[in-house]
Amino acid sequence: MQKILYTNNVSEAIESLVKEINPVSVHIITDENVERDVLARLALPYPRIVVKAGDEHKNIASLSQIWAGLIEQGATRHSLVINIGGGVITDMGGFAAATYKRGIKFINVPTTLLSAVDAAVGGKTGINFEGFKNEIGAFAPADAVVISTILFATLPREELLSGYAEMIKHGLLSSEKEYNELLNFHILDANLESLLPLLEKSVKVKERIVEEDPKEHGIRRALNLGHTAGHAFEGLALERDTPMPHGYAVAYGMLVEMILSHTLLQYPSAELYRYASYLKDNGYGAPAIDCKDYDALVEYMRHDKKNLTRDTINFTLLASPGNPLIDRTASESDIRASLDIFRDLMGI
Amino acid sequence: MQKILYTNNVSEAIESLVKEINPVSVHIITDENVERDVLARLALPYPRIVVKAGDEHKNIASLSQIWAGLIEQGATRHSLVINIGGGVITDMGGFAAATYKRGIKFINVPTTLLSAVDAAVGGKTGINFEGFKNEIGAFAPADAVVISTILFATLPREELLSGYAEMIKHGLLSSEKEYNELLNFHILDANLESLLPLLEKSVKVKERIVEEDPKEHGIRRALNLGHTAGHAFEGLALERDTPMPHGYAVAYGMLVEMILSHTLLQYPSAELYRYASYLKDNGYGAPAIDCKDYDALVEYMRHDKKNLTRDTINFTLLASPGNPLIDRTASESDIRASLDIFRDLMGI
Repeated sequence: MQKILYTNNVSEAIESLVKEINPVSVHIITDENVERDVLARLALPYPRIVVKAGDEHKNIASLSQIWAGLIEQGATRHSLVINIGGGVITDMGGFAAATYKRGIKFINVPTTLLSAVDAAVGGKTGINFEGFKNEIGAFAPADAVVISTILFATLPREELLSGYAEMIKHGLLSSEKEYNELLNFHILDANLESLLPLLEKSVKVKERIVEEDPKEHGIRRALNLGHTAGHAFEGLALERDTPMPHGYAVAYGMLVEMILSHTLLQYPSAELYRYASYLKDNGYGAPAIDCKDYDALVEYMRHDKKNLTRDTINFTLLASPGNPLIDRTASESDIRASLDIFRDLMGI
Repeated sequence: MQKILYTNNVSEAIESLVKEINPVSVHIITDENVERDVLARLALPYPRIVVKAGDEHKNIASLSQIWAGLIEQGATRHSLVINIGGGVITDMGGFAAATYKRGIKFINVPTTLLSAVDAAVGGKTGINFEGFKNEIGAFAPADAVVISTILFATLPREELLSGYAEMIKHGLLSSEKEYNELLNFHILDANLESLLPLLEKSVKVKERIVEEDPKEHGIRRALNLGHTAGHAFEGLALERDTPMPHGYAVAYGMLVEMILSHTLLQYPSAELYRYASYLKDNGYGAPAIDCKDYDALVEYMRHDKKNLTRDTINFTLLASPGNPLIDRTASESDIRASLDIFRDLMGI
C-alpha cells in the first residue's frame, strides 16, 4: 500500500518521509523546468539528476542518464530516489528506481495536477520506446507520494484544466455526489488551497480501484473512461501538428463515451447537456473536427491498445454517474452517431 | 511459485507449457551459439530474437534489440517469451520480458549447468551497466523453467565443473547427506541422464531458500556461500586477463570460507581436507596466487556489494555441512591466515 501525504508543506513532508525511511543516501530526479520553477523554492539538501523536460525525452537516453547519475552519486540498494516533476518524471524516475540494483525505494512528488491525480499514484512506471508510449516499464508503486496543490502555482491554465478532467473522471467513476461536487467547482477561479481536499478525494478513488486490481486484469480498466475516444482526439491532433493537452482529450472523450452510454445503457440525456455545458463554460474549448474526420477517429479507436481483440472497440461506459461498466463494445455506426451528437452538443 | 519441469524431452515440455499458458504468440530469445548448437535440435516453430553471445553483450544494446524484436514480431501483453540459453540469456531475456509493456510471461530453458542450477531459477533478472555486473534489473520469476541435462551434451568440461560447484554449494547449504552424495558423484565421468535427479534436488534447495526470502533481505544471502572470496579470485583473474569460470572461483571461495568457518565456528578440519581433495581429484585445478596477492584479494572482498557497511567484510559461513550462518564478519588477519591455509591445502 502506498503512503500518500496531502499537505501544503512539501519540504517538511519530504523530510519526515526521509527520516522514516532512513536511507543511506537520497537522490532527486527532476527536469530542467521543474528545477528552475519549483526546486528553487523547496531548498532540499540532496544531489540532483536533471533530465531534459518533455515527453520526447522520456526515453532510453534519459533513463540511462538517470542510472548513470545514481551510480555516480554512489546510490546503493538502501538509497532513496525522490521524483519531483510531472508524469514524465514520476513514470521514468520510478522505472529507473525500480530497476536500479533490481529496485530501490522511491517517493513521487508530482508538480502538475495531472500527475498528482493520475501518474504519481498507482505503480505504472516506464518510458516510451520506438515511438510507442510507455512501451517499456514495470508495475512498481512508489513507497510514498507527497501531494501538494501549492506546487501548481506556476502552472498555465491549460495544465490545470487538463488535470481537472481526470479528477472529473474519478468523480464519474465514484459517485453522483462526488461528480456533482466537482462540477460545482471552477478550477480556474479557485484558490489552490481549496483544491487540496477535492484532490485528496479524487486520488482516493484511484487508490481504491488500483488496490483492487493492481495489474489491470479487470476493474482497473474503469480508469480508461474517456480514454478510448480521448486517445483518438489526441492522436489526430498530434498527427496534424496541433497537439492537445491530454486532459482536454479525455474531457472530450468522456462526452463521446457518455453519449455511447446513453445509446447503449440509458445514461440520462440530461447528464449529457449538463456535462457539455460544464466544458463550454469552463474554458475547455472544443476539438476542431468535422464529419470528414470520423474515419480517422474510428481508425484510432480500433488500434487502441486496450482492445481485447482485433475486431472490436473496447470502452468503459456508464450506466449513470458513479456506475461504470468495463469492457463494453460499440459498433462503428454507434460511434459515428455519437460523434454527430458530440459535435452538436459542443457546437462544432 | 515457479513451475519447474525436470525432463529430458525438452520440446514436449515446452509445447505442453505453451498449451497451458495459451499465449497470443510465442517468441524465443537466444544467442548465436545456442542457436547453432541447441536450437537446431529442438525444432520449435516460433520466431527468434538472436543476440550476440557472451557477458560483454549483456547490455542496453542487446536489451533494446530484444525489445525492438518483440515489437517487430507483434508481441502483445498476452504473448509469451521463451529464453533458451545460459545465464546471460535467462537474465537478460527475463528482464526484457518483465519490462515489455510492463511485463509479459516468460519461460526459461537453461542450456548450461550453471544457469540451470543458478540463474534460471529465483527471479533475478538484469543486465550489466557501465561495467557493473547486473547493475540494472528486476526481481521477476519466470512463469516456468524447463530443466534438462541433455542440453548440456555439447558443453566443454569446464562449463560442467563450473556449474557443478554451485550444486556442491547447495548441498553444503542443505544437509550433510546431500553434500556427501554430491562429493561421491564425478561429473566428468557421469552420463548426463544420471545427473538429472541430482540437479533436481539441487534446484529444490535454491527454490526453498528463495521462496522463504525472494528479495534477499535475509536467508537468501546464504546462497552467497563461497561468493565473497570467490568474487575476489574471479575479479583478480579478470584484471590479469586470465578469466576464470565463475564456478571455479566459487569452488575455491568455498574452501576459503570453510577455513574461516573452521577458525571462527569450529567447522570440522577433516571436512577441509575432504573438500580440498575433491577439488584436486576432479579437475578444478587451483588459482595462480601467492602471498603477494593477498592485499588485492582483501581489497576485492572489502568492495563486495554484499557488505552491509563499508568497514566490515561479510560472509556466509558454515557451522557444519548443512548449517549455514549468514552475515558473519571476519577480520583482515583471519582472512589472510585462511588464504595461507588455502594455498597449503591446494598445494600452491
